[in-house]
Amino acid sequence: MRTQVAIAGAGPAGLLLSHLLSLRGIDSVVLESRDRAYVEKRQRAGMLEQGTVDVLRGSGVGERLDREGLTHHGLELRFGGAGHRIPLSELTGGRTVTVYAQTEIVKDLIAARPAAGGDVRFEAEVLSVDPSAPSVTYRQDGRVQTLECDVIAGCDGFHGVCRAAVPGATVFEREYPFAWLGILADVPPSTDELIYAYSERGFALYSLRSPKISRLYLQVDPSDDVAAWPDERIWAELRARFATRDGWELRDGPVLEKAITPMRSFVTEPMRHDRLFLAGDAAHIVPPTGAKGLNLAISDVTVLAAALGAWYDSGSTELLDAYSATCLRRVWRAEHFSYWMTTLLHKDPRQDAFGHRLQLSHLEYVAASKAAAATLAENYVGAAPKL
Amino acid sequence: MRTQVAIAGAGPAGLLLSHLLSLRGIDSVVLESRDRAYVEKRQRAGMLEQGTVDVLRGSGVGERLDREGLTHHGLELRFGGAGHRIPLSELTGGRTVTVYAQTEIVKDLIAARPAAGGDVRFEAEVLSVDPSAPSVTYRQDGRVQTLECDVIAGCDGFHGVCRAAVPGATVFEREYPFAWLGILADVPPSTDELIYAYSERGFALYSLRSPKISRLYLQVDPSDDVAAWPDERIWAELRARFATRDGWELRDGPVLEKAITPMRSFVTEPMRHDRLFLAGDAAHIVPPTGAKGLNLAISDVTVLAAALGAWYDSGSTELLDAYSATCLRRVWRAEHFSYWMTTLLHKDPRQDAFGHRLQLSHLEYVAASKAAAATLAENYVGAAPKL
Repeated sequence: MRTQVAIAGAGPAGLLLSHLLSLRGIDSVVLESRDRAYVEKRQRAGMLEQGTVDVLRGSGVGERLDREGLTHHGLELRFGGAGHRIPLSELTGGRTVTVYAQTEIVKDLIAARPAAGGDVRFEAEVLSVDPSAPSVTYRQDGRVQTLECDVIAGCDGFHGVCRAAVPGATVFEREYPFAWLGILADVPPSTDELIYAYSERGFALYSLRSPKISRLYLQVDPSDDVAAWPDERIWAELRARFATRDGWELRDGPVLEKAITPMRSFVTEPMRHDRLFLAGDAAHIVPPTGAKGLNLAISDVTVLAAALGAWYDSGSTELLDAYSATCLRRVWRAEHFSYWMTTLLHKDPRQDAFGHRLQLSHLEYVAASKAAAATLAENYVGAAPKL
Repeated sequence: MRTQVAIAGAGPAGLLLSHLLSLRGIDSVVLESRDRAYVEKRQRAGMLEQGTVDVLRGSGVGERLDREGLTHHGLELRFGGAGHRIPLSELTGGRTVTVYAQTEIVKDLIAARPAAGGDVRFEAEVLSVDPSAPSVTYRQDGRVQTLECDVIAGCDGFHGVCRAAVPGATVFEREYPFAWLGILADVPPSTDELIYAYSERGFALYSLRSPKISRLYLQVDPSDDVAAWPDERIWAELRARFATRDGWELRDGPVLEKAITPMRSFVTEPMRHDRLFLAGDAAHIVPPTGAKGLNLAISDVTVLAAALGAWYDSGSTELLDAYSATCLRRVWRAEHFSYWMTTLLHKDPRQDAFGHRLQLSHLEYVAASKAAAATLAENYVGAAPKL
């Protein structure tokens, strides 16, 4: 069997790439080890940069996003018992971010694929890839098969096989001494905008999912077991970390889901070997504090689709040859920003007294200085210089 | 013997305080362990915030500063073989910084003191202070004497005795794995504006002293001996670190002075105990990268002079009671900025590959983003919010 572009992974990166390629008349096959129900249910990020929204809308999969997405013009930093609004749009010439869950994007893209003649194969586990005589070996229905192709797109995430197929790669990595306990709760949000809270008890994030469902996160120890966090403890801890001097109230409700996710920064370079191109989590991980992971994945495949389009159209390899460097400039900006937001807002158990005071001074500065707030805003909405 | 305010230390903090108090009709005696020639020759900082210039000018000791000081509107960040100008004035509503050596300020203040009836005693070593029954014990001409007073100002630097007289103080400290080798060179500057250079060989700073004298610094190992740095090695290293792709030329010349200074961040809290008030280096040290040490010292004594003035005028202790908190807000902003500039620009031998890439991305961001450059600029010129 043969296709033009073999895509490993049916996350947002792989699915969107397949969709963008089909708009250019390029065939692809998406291979995904999980089943469709699992992929459509996976809870992940949900904060889209304006550029991400533009790509989805511009490629015809933005209809439900436009209808159900929640446009945000600001966020709140909360510390020392008080909130400080960062007016994202005002600080970035009117740019916005949109709350729309990754899982909804995945559903929209899966729904769009068959209509466009897309070939997405679930429960098809990629076993190996050959970047030089380009092909993908995978197992489906118990049978091992080979998919011949011109190019392989490695969109199979941090635990996929593609990354290992780039020989001599350089890896950059940082682990953090904390993790996020995330919950989905069946309660209307207690806030209109996201709240990023630093407290001496640790970080907490009030995120949003829909007008009826809240998404909240707590900094916990990476060795913590979810079993150690019964619902009452979670709500009590959230209440303590979000507490304000003026008595802000946190509404609680049934916890629908809870999970602990470790925090990691990771980059592998280069993002290409021969006919294999890595995109999204296969090449880079950011801690979730800056909400950059999904947006980077979308950006990678947008660059890749354009480069493949140019190559198929004209035979020019210029954009393909620049792919890794082009993506990595944006990746490192996002890595730095994500590290910055993470260290600004989390309580680091290893930190000394001097570092703690620097952190407080830094928080106060970001809340008080228009220039400092603008650095947060332009990175958050994705308007920072793409270095 | 008795005075109203006993001042330990004839650095810029102690001398300016004495001067500001005399303008308010408050008597003081300054006690300084070194002799006058030593104090007037000590090479220290030389970059004045506009607020610092305003204080000196406004108190009548700005005449030579206005004549000889060099006003700067920008500085250069240099890395990756290219320079990037940070337009300080443009980014801060027209504020400037002024190059005028601390040693010149000291001379101006010493010259102004006798004319105003000021009492500055050199070679008078403070042995102890009593913050509660306020008095200073000191030795001059071999005799131990006591100076009774209303208030003691501890302007005696990091190694002075005053800091230890604040019981139960909390100390915040950070050491850096590098030091600065500073030289004064008898050569006209090769640049009109300061150059802060990051290179893989380490940090270098092209500072200025006068149209004929250059002041340069090199990041070195804190265990390095000055003897290991003959002039030729210094110039070769400077040349390598300042090298640009377009062949910028560094003029060399006779080295008049060289010394290695360790880098340290230090804060002690509170800055007051009973009738003892700490100011300048006695209470806080910053690494020199942000050029904040002298400016903080001037700011401290400006706050203290106003507070003492209000107390003598009206008996109100309000400003004196707020002294420590008022100063510390500005101190922590400067501590954070100085740490930020230092870690942005130095090569940290302990840094891992991920941290190194973050640093490069951060440098590129500061050079490319107006908002990020503005955070540098507003802190550098001293216009950042006083938190």
